[in-house]
Amino acid sequence: MEILKNVISQMIRLTDNEAENFMSLCYRKMFKKKEILSEDEKIIDEVYFIESGILRVKIFDINGSEHTVHFAIENQFIADYRAFLTGEKSSYMLEAMEDTEVIVLPKKAIEWGYNNMHEGQKLGRLIAEYYFTYLDRRIEHLYTLSPIQRYDLMNQIFPDIHNRVPQHMIASYLGITPIHLSRIKKKAPLKSLNIC
Amino acid sequence: MEILKNVISQMIRLTDNEAENFMSLCYRKMFKKKEILSEDEKIIDEVYFIESGILRVKIFDINGSEHTVHFAIENQFIADYRAFLTGEKSSYMLEAMEDTEVIVLPKKAIEWGYNNMHEGQKLGRLIAEYYFTYLDRRIEHLYTLSPIQRYDLMNQIFPDIHNRVPQHMIASYLGITPIHLSRIKKKAPLKSLNIC
Repeated sequence: MEILKNVISQMIRLTDNEAENFMSLCYRKMFKKKEILSEDEKIIDEVYFIESGILRVKIFDINGSEHTVHFAIENQFIADYRAFLTGEKSSYMLEAMEDTEVIVLPKKAIEWGYNNMHEGQKLGRLIAEYYFTYLDRRIEHLYTLSPIQRYDLMNQIFPDIHNRVPQHMIASYLGITPIHLSRIKKKAPLKSLNIC
Repeated sequence: MEILKNVISQMIRLTDNEAENFMSLCYRKMFKKKEILSEDEKIIDEVYFIESGILRVKIFDINGSEHTVHFAIENQFIADYRAFLTGEKSSYMLEAMEDTEVIVLPKKAIEWGYNNMHEGQKLGRLIAEYYFTYLDRRIEHLYTLSPIQRYDLMNQIFPDIHNRVPQHMIASYLGITPIHLSRIKKKAPLKSLNIC
């Protein structure tokens, strides 16, 4: 769990004692490829930190069609964080796209951190701000970028995505059809843009 | 500024002394209808709390087309919060849709709060979590709701929006054409759904 400790230490001052107590409330869990980590319509009381593997976050619309709204890779936190925060039932499902190893951060560990770590609230603030920033960029890009620009950007964020996830899920993430994605991939090397 | 104090007091324990010191770093500002509160391509070092009025958040895509991505009304905080947090130049413009009165929270006030208010970091966490939750719902709905459902939802969040904002901005917010919006408005009373 050293990597999680390092990630937290980059955000706040963390004593060895705080780290030890916090980690003792967390545990490691393995998921096989295609296994569901987190269901929709459930109460969410844990957050995952991905040590290895890749997940997708998916949702069904009212017509029963599936949409891939996010991917998450190594060294990222992932959860239906809205459901975790609000106590409302989850909207999203988390599915392993490869054999995936995560550290489970149960709600009681996170609450222990808020109440007992000297900079626990600051850590929570920085994580919420980080993911707010991520979502804000997603919304901006849905409004302002063309599909090919969103494609280029995705490749920067998830460099190896095409070898790890089926194409129809990538198309769904980009909000385009698989045929459109196929056309973009043929043109993409010529049109790459540096957008962050 | 009593309303801002009350909003903060609903989130954290705030002493009179903390409130007085914090408010002394903030100030009230008026904007006329159509005035720009915050430009794009700028460094953002303040957040607004709306006492009265309504704003829209707009952005230009690379073709120069304007998009309305958010509205904000009384008792809400608003800023290009991503630019405020990251220090990157702003992407969004904030424009008053009516004569609008805000309390300006300069960065130094917010940082004073983090460093000196007993629950300042917690306040920052709760605000970031609240706006994360808001954006997460926006993304979910862009993927899963039909235009008429997004229209119904907007009417719940901004009940009087049609009397306060031009129709083409509402259409842009919903991601549809003004003609499509006009059709939806004719059908809407029959199709209202209770989605939160």
